[in-house]
Amino acid sequence: MQESWIRNERLSSQVAFLVEIDKLKSVLRKTFIMDRSRLENTAEHSWHVSLLAVVLLEHANDPSLDLNRVICMLLLHDIVEIDAGDTFAYDTEGYLDKEERENAAARRLFGMLPDDQQGEWMELWREFEDGVTHESKYAAALDRLQPVIHNYYTGGVSWRNNGIVRSQVLKRLAPVKEVSETLWQFTNDILQRSIDQGILLDDPIAKEG
Amino acid sequence: MQESWIRNERLSSQVAFLVEIDKLKSVLRKTFIMDRSRLENTAEHSWHVSLLAVVLLEHANDPSLDLNRVICMLLLHDIVEIDAGDTFAYDTEGYLDKEERENAAARRLFGMLPDDQQGEWMELWREFEDGVTHESKYAAALDRLQPVIHNYYTGGVSWRNNGIVRSQVLKRLAPVKEVSETLWQFTNDILQRSIDQGILLDDPIAKEG
Ligand SMILES: [Ca+2]
Repeated sequence: MQESWIRNERLSSQVAFLVEIDKLKSVLRKTFIMDRSRLENTAEHSWHVSLLAVVLLEHANDPSLDLNRVICMLLLHDIVEIDAGDTFAYDTEGYLDKEERENAAARRLFGMLPDDQQGEWMELWREFEDGVTHESKYAAALDRLQPVIHNYYTGGVSWRNNGIVRSQVLKRLAPVKEVSETLWQFTNDILQRSIDQGILLDDPIAKEG
Repeated sequence: MQESWIRNERLSSQVAFLVEIDKLKSVLRKTFIMDRSRLENTAEHSWHVSLLAVVLLEHANDPSLDLNRVICMLLLHDIVEIDAGDTFAYDTEGYLDKEERENAAARRLFGMLPDDQQGEWMELWREFEDGVTHESKYAAALDRLQPVIHNYYTGGVSWRNNGIVRSQVLKRLAPVKEVSETLWQFTNDILQRSIDQGILLDDPIAKEG
């Protein structure tokens, strides 16, 4: 989208980008909003998980981490879904070409911004994907914890629809263990309660041969 | 909601709060999302306007302002709408008791958090509402600019549905003038284009007596 009527050239690119990312409001996830009336979209998910990061910071083993960087990562990391779609956390086939699809999406979408900003955003997005820094680990932990809370409070509908078992969720939630003892305890408790309530399947017990 | 099974008392309050604010995803605004398929909800609006703040920071007259504080304000300032509802920007009657309704909402909602956090969040929310600091002025400017961009790109549907004229929008957008010359120029240009395209009404010319 060319916006030649915008007199400031940088602003013209930025407005085009900000209009384009509105499409994230129409990307649907597998989780339901708490009242179960509809699926959650990725834009409102990004808002919610950013607030989780703010509210739960004290539980991070390293509470001195750069919260601003965490929030920026959480606000932007899912924008690639506009082109690449939401890949369900437990979709092994979808994960095969996820990286390729999302790299192309990041180049197109962040490429709408002026060069210096494109560079910064690509860097933030890669930092989140790589998950090496404290900030990206904390951000990823919350991004994975949020749908578990949603599943618990919506009767496990997304788990049950997709036949998910405890070990799959625990594996997916591994980043939580690394960033917070309190949140890892909470994760284990909420999964045990979900199993006790019959809304999450436990793993089948291995049969003796 | 009592969550007595959560072993950490602070976490228990925080989770209850984070579940409660999910309701913001069901609060509808008067603006449409860009593809005009439905009204925008306040949670996704909060995400969008937070990213406007990040992307457009360079245009602020004072680009040294505390971006983290700006984003936190934008992420939380509309949470009161869960109880108080979205008051349309041009609804003079709704504005009469808006402050009272929103104060009660802030007390109930932020009151779900541990005391120290409640204090911090009330302070951030009041700072936004008071609009005295540089951070709150910049945040407010973007919060008001975002629906104008939406209106322009959706054929002015929300303006036309509500019979809004240019001077009303300009009055509402006054905070933009204070924080950024570039964004104020943009505001005037986008309104002029909207009038030229017939999607915003100009003010009636005063008749001579
Ligand atoms: Ca995510």
